Amino acid sequence: MSNNKTIITIGRQYGSGGRKIGKLLSERLGMPFYDKELLTEAAKKSGFCEEIFHENDEKPAGSFLYSLVMGTGAAATADAMPLDNKLFLAQFDTIKDIASKGPCVIIGRCADYALEDYKNVLNVFIYADMEDKKKRAVEEYGLKAKNIEDAIIKTDKKRASYYNFYSGKKWGVAGSYDLCINSSKFGIEKTVDFIVDCVNELNK
Amino acid sequence: MSNNKTIITIGRQYGSGGRKIGKLLSERLGMPFYDKELLTEAAKKSGFCEEIFHENDEKPAGSFLYSLVMGTGAAATADAMPLDNKLFLAQFDTIKDIASKGPCVIIGRCADYALEDYKNVLNVFIYADMEDKKKRAVEEYGLKAKNIEDAIIKTDKKRASYYNFYSGKKWGVAGSYDLCINSSKFGIEKTVDFIVDCVNELNK
Repeated sequence: MSNNKTIITIGRQYGSGGRKIGKLLSERLGMPFYDKELLTEAAKKSGFCEEIFHENDEKPAGSFLYSLVMGTGAAATADAMPLDNKLFLAQFDTIKDIASKGPCVIIGRCADYALEDYKNVLNVFIYADMEDKKKRAVEEYGLKAKNIEDAIIKTDKKRASYYNFYSGKKWGVAGSYDLCINSSKFGIEKTVDFIVDCVNELNK
Repeated sequence: MSNNKTIITIGRQYGSGGRKIGKLLSERLGMPFYDKELLTEAAKKSGFCEEIFHENDEKPAGSFLYSLVMGTGAAATADAMPLDNKLFLAQFDTIKDIASKGPCVIIGRCADYALEDYKNVLNVFIYADMEDKKKRAVEEYGLKAKNIEDAIIKTDKKRASYYNFYSGKKWGVAGSYDLCINSSKFGIEKTVDFIVDCVNELNK
């Protein structure tokens, strides 16, 4: 498997197991894995503190109200690029930098868009049935919320807003990706198997 | 392969090769294939003439303007069910009838929705890059239009409108299906291989 040359980007619904699938893929195909790790890299590369990347991670940008609350964006002076845009660009550069070093798995953060001119990229979207997402959110991610389903939907709305704003594509719409799999239908392990098969095909 | 027990429904963008993929799947897995064939069955079963099914095939329903033009729908009297709804229901019943006889491949026509309570169903959505869709539309389907891309987009808009109206789900959005594949990424034959692998997994 060490002759894999395909970068895998994974968009995912919250609670769908997308992160776990990505982690297993990176192990199976022997390549680095970036989820939150990408924020650390972007912080190192840009000089912004890592915390601010975590605070703004995959959250909607560009709305005036959000900018007011954050003290950024449209509320900032015209000659300074809004902070959320700067953070996006730092991540964008980091994703390209990482990809130029070789195959890897990158979770979320518009990596598919950042790498749209790269060959050897497989863009995947992972989703799941709500009951499975609720179970995973509580048992594996330790999500605490009055209404778990609402919290899941809200997180996905933020991801969608972030993705749609920066990529100009539509989050969760099949046409934005090469392959979309409902992890509830096949289970995590089999979903990984299918993606490995697809990657092996692309590596030929 | 004769012990396959999975019904496959295929939603598809116009020109994506979804029909061809479905046809190959039906051959590989040894089961009947329904695309336009479904309309013939629905006509036989309902008593409506087959032509009217073809005329209304996967076209938007429920809009007042459309109803006025068609002389159906909201413009019809309150005690008579609009013709487009009757046609939908006839197809809906036909799909269930066909499915109750055993595994098969059904293209479009909200088959995923009609069979949502059935076990052993794999709902697939096939899409493709625009250049491939244009090529296929002209060379294989013989599409003649001033602007091929516009014609493709219009057909998909009709399919989306029909699907969204009747199924209450969103056409082309990953979450509406179990598996979505860009046939441009892997090619028709490999896409068929992947789906066969998925079906074999579900048959276990």
